[in-house]
This record gives sequence, C-alpha cells and structure tokens, in this order.
Amino acid sequence: MAVLVTGGAGFMGSHVADELLAKGHDVVVLDDLSGGFIENVPEKATFVEGSIADNELVQRLFLQYRFEHVFHLAAYAAEGLSHFIRSFNYRNNLAGSVNLINAAVNAGTKCFVFTSSIAVYGKNQLPMLETTTPLPEDPYGVAKYAVEMDLRCAHEMFGMDYVIFRPHNVYGERQNIGDRYRNVIGIFINQIMQGKPLTIFGDGEQTRAFSYISDVAPVIARAPFVEKARNRVFNVGADQPHTVNRLAQVVCKAMGVEPRILHLPPRNEVVHAYSSHDAAREAFSPGEAVSLEEGVARMVEWAKRIGAKSSQTFKCIEIPRNLPPSWARQERTPATPAATSLPRAAA
Amino acid sequence: MAVLVTGGAGFMGSHVADELLAKGHDVVVLDDLSGGFIENVPEKATFVEGSIADNELVQRLFLQYRFEHVFHLAAYAAEGLSHFIRSFNYRNNLAGSVNLINAAVNAGTKCFVFTSSIAVYGKNQLPMLETTTPLPEDPYGVAKYAVEMDLRCAHEMFGMDYVIFRPHNVYGERQNIGDRYRNVIGIFINQIMQGKPLTIFGDGEQTRAFSYISDVAPVIARAPFVEKARNRVFNVGADQPHTVNRLAQVVCKAMGVEPRILHLPPRNEVVHAYSSHDAAREAFSPGEAVSLEEGVARMVEWAKRIGAKSSQTFKCIEIPRNLPPSWARQERTPATPAATSLPRAAA
Repeated sequence: MAVLVTGGAGFMGSHVADELLAKGHDVVVLDDLSGGFIENVPEKATFVEGSIADNELVQRLFLQYRFEHVFHLAAYAAEGLSHFIRSFNYRNNLAGSVNLINAAVNAGTKCFVFTSSIAVYGKNQLPMLETTTPLPEDPYGVAKYAVEMDLRCAHEMFGMDYVIFRPHNVYGERQNIGDRYRNVIGIFINQIMQGKPLTIFGDGEQTRAFSYISDVAPVIARAPFVEKARNRVFNVGADQPHTVNRLAQVVCKAMGVEPRILHLPPRNEVVHAYSSHDAAREAFSPGEAVSLEEGVARMVEWAKRIGAKSSQTFKCIEIPRNLPPSWARQERTPATPAATSLPRAAA
Repeated sequence: MAVLVTGGAGFMGSHVADELLAKGHDVVVLDDLSGGFIENVPEKATFVEGSIADNELVQRLFLQYRFEHVFHLAAYAAEGLSHFIRSFNYRNNLAGSVNLINAAVNAGTKCFVFTSSIAVYGKNQLPMLETTTPLPEDPYGVAKYAVEMDLRCAHEMFGMDYVIFRPHNVYGERQNIGDRYRNVIGIFINQIMQGKPLTIFGDGEQTRAFSYISDVAPVIARAPFVEKARNRVFNVGADQPHTVNRLAQVVCKAMGVEPRILHLPPRNEVVHAYSSHDAAREAFSPGEAVSLEEGVARMVEWAKRIGAKSSQTFKCIEIPRNLPPSWARQERTPATPAATSLPRAAA
C-alpha cells in the first residue's frame, strides 16, 4: 500500500519521504514546487506535480492509490506574512488540507499525519505544552489550528486516526535558503554567501530552540506505526534554546567568515520561545539531539554546494497596511538585502 | 456612511437590516439567496445579489461604499451536515468571511460584527460561557471559531474592532421553514401544514433555550454603537430552556391541531444545551424576553400566511459515509418527510 507525502519536494517533506522509502514504503510525493524543488524529491518516490488546493487532482490521486497513510506537510509557511495574505493563506493551508481530509476519509486512509506549528500557541504561552489552550495570533496559526480541529472532528465522526506535530524552528539541508520571509539560519547563510552583513532584529538576545532536521523527520515518519501516538498532538524539536547572536557566531564560524552584524529595529516578536517535548520523548524515544554546531556545519556544507539563492518576493499582497518596512521596501527594490526574520514556526 | 449586512435576505440578517434602517442607516444587503428569500430584504435597503465567496464582488462593493460597519450574518448554517460537506463549509463560512475581513481592513471599516454560533463550544461544556475554551465538534463550528480567531488577529494587527455573537436556537418570522436540516420549530410548523406527524429524535426530553428573533436582532444591530461591547464575544438568546416535547405542544396549540408525534431513534446530540447571557445583559440591557408561547404564536401567524415549503436537499455531499439515515434516505427519495433535526446552533 502506498503512502502520500504532501510537500515532499520541500524541506521537511523530502526528509520524511526519505525515511519512509528507507523503511520500504511506496511513496507518492505531491508538491506544487511553489516552495520546494524537484531535486529534493527522492529518486524512488513517485512524483506528482500539483497543489493540494486542486481538489480534482487530490480526489483522483486517492482513487488511484487508496493511500494507507498520509503525511501532510505541504503549506505556505510564511507565518509573519500571513496577516497580509489572509485569503491565500486559508486557501492553501486550510482548504487544501480539507481536500486531503475528505479524500482520506473516502479512501479509508488509516492514519493522517499533519505537521501543524507552534504558531497555534500564540505568544507568551511558555513553555508551550500540548495541553496549553491554543491562542493563535496570525492567520497562519489560525489555519493550522483549524486543520487540527477538523482532524479531530473527522476522527470522531469517521474513525480516521490522526497524529499532529507542532515542530519548533527546524533547520537543515534542503531548506529553502532563498526564502526572505523565514528560516533565519538559511537567511544568514545566504547573506554570507552574497557578501552581505547578517541582519538581526533588535539586540539579538531573543532565543529559539533551533531543531536539526534529523531530530524531527524520523519521528514524523514513524507516527502511524507507533500505536500510542495515535490521535495525539506532539511538540517536536530541540530542547536547548540559543540566542540569535550565538546562532550568528556559529553560522559565521561554520562558513569560515568574520561576523558582520547589522542590527535592525526590534520586531513585535516573542523574546524566548521554547516547547516541552516530554510527550514526544515518551512516545517515540528519539536518540540524542544533534548539537547546533554539528547541525549548522552539516547545513553549511550542503549550502556551499548549492550556492546562494536569490530572495523570492510574494507578489499578491492583499492588505498593504502595516506590512513590515523591510518587507515593504523589498517589494519595491528587489536588490536590497532581505531583513532577517525570526519566525517562531518552522512548519 | 453605509453599513453592510451579509445574509440580509435570510432570517436573522433581514431583521438586523430592519433594525438598522429604522435607526436611519444606509443599508446594503449582500445575499446569494441560497438560503434566504428576496422578499425578506427590506424595501429601503440596497440589495446586491451575490456571494461572500465571490472575492471580486466583495472587494468592489467595499471600494464603492467604504462600509463604516459590517454585519456579517451570511453562512451555510446546517451544522450537522457540515461533516459531509467539509470543503463547501469552509469555502462559504471561512473563506467567504475572510474576503470580507480583508476588504473591511482595506476600507477602514470601524466595526465588524460577526454572528458566530454556540457550535464553537462543542458538546458537554455547560453552561456555555464566553470564557469557556471552545472545542468545536464539527466543521461548521471549526469554521465559525476560525473566523472569530481571525477577527482577533485582524484587530491586533490593523486595529479593526469586532463584536462576536454566539446565538442560541433563534426562531421567528422569515425563518426558512423549508430547511430540512435545521430549525426544529420551522420543521414542526411545516410538518403540520403538510398534514404530517411531528418527528422527534429520541424521547423529546432534551431541552433548548429557544430564542425569539426580537430578543436577538436588535442586540446585534446595536453592537457597533455600544462602546463597551467592542472586541468582545457575547452569547445571545433566551435563558429559559424548554423540552422538545413541550415545544411540540406549544406549536400544535398555536396551529390549532391535536399533537401527532412520531419518535425517531435518538441522535448523538447533547441533552441539555444552555448558555449564560450575563455578559450580553450587562453590555446591552435588553428588555424582557418574549415567551415561547408568544413567539411561536407570532411565527405561526406568519407561517400560515406563507404556507408550507417543500424541503430542500443538499446536492453535493462530499463524504457519504455515516450520513444520518433520515438524511441519506431523503437524498434518494425526495418525497419522504424530513426528519426533525434539533440543531444546537441557530446561526
């Protein structure tokens, strides 16, 4: 029986697909290549280019393959931008997910694995626990939380199992380092390769528990096969927080350059974000986490091979008001360096 | 300055439009007539036939009128059916609402009034309080709650005020008594006018606080003009619960017929649903509630004038599995009498 990985040409999705192929599963990857790259798709996977928002395609795929399990990682994941692209956000991240849920119920899919986000918690609910009442503060978090709730409804009504993950600032090889709206480590690497200073919002003493991909993807790939994980929500990622200043040092060292930092005015963002991963540890017993130095070194080695990427701009802003100046500026002069955003959510 | 009433050809929306016109506002009604009727639209309102899901139309209307306040009551409100029409539900009730929120932010709308639903609470959270953590149990409730959250995000980011209402089993003149999926009082009246027995799920001892429209619509219409109501959530409706058996007696008496009751197997529904309305009482100081006898008598007088309506069927079921037998049966043989559903949510 085949399994489906949506977003399998993207960063996390391609690693999850790798894990599943290594375990002998038939893997179908569905990806519209809006954020992912064809070269990320594992060779042994069946690749279908298309969007989860294309309901006809989704229904056809499920009729053809009757997927036993679904790993739904496709999303347009620029959390901070979602205020300004509300309709686009819900169309991709909610309506697209609902197409998959409908099709999965009709196909008798056994387990639907969904990567949600710590964006569902909102700010200032620390530590973020799976038992914390979600209070999302942007449309991205609202859409993720709505899909979580819809999966619970579908489980109650139709008996389809789910496993929900809320990953925390994941980084590693195959991440889109040309995305100007998110992924601070990729942005740093890209800035160095372009000979530009690293841009940091505020004093850089804000902390995040940057999570290396090999500590996250295997857990997600195992979800349907761990009985006690069914119908539960898990934070997933690293426990050790680091300041953005320290991250900048680690990235510069791995790149072999002297740090050049440009501090921008602070953003309205949470200072310290950290999750509890006790539930995931108990259910999945993962190995020891990869250190920041080791993870960044691996990512840098890969990034040097692929080279700098030019920042992408999002063309269809729906609400121009209050768009952060660095993003707004970029819209007009694409040659300006991208300001470093520090998203709380990596999924 | 004009105000917009979406769903203004529907039951609650047309009464809210009446209230606003009586207070001297310029009222534009947007309604696609999927559940409402052109004859419900107040004569003095400007009527635009179209859907909130038609983004181009929505943006054009806001550019033309720059609505000062928005009263968003349009929805496809068949809660129980929403499990089986997920995509349709989110497209209409979430994506359509987001079109309005985008347009309202861009137009500088001052206050966005949204009729949510007690469906956001889910079952077994009684009494339903505005401070209760929502736990919706069907896609209808998920969509309503997602719009609530999105409005809060839009308020934080753009400063647009909102007032959210969660009405409880509202009934009265202009309700669609031909809707087979909801509105138990309308269904009873319709069954009597068609010479059929009243159908009740289970023993009929389940209770609901049926709320007469004149106790609800004026409160909604006043929302933007009550300063302390801004950016808050209010349950709205009656306090006094009644059993469905008693309701059947009251309806039969008002219709002047002897009760003929057909008890169907019980449904998976909450036995006693009741909300606290302390917050609305404190903010709006409404008058004394209309009694069930009085409200039903007024509705019956109106219904007798318009006559029986034939039940409508929903054509595009997305998931046929687990569709309640009485609804599924109806899909195949449209001549069978509609089973009485007892929705918890009237909005």
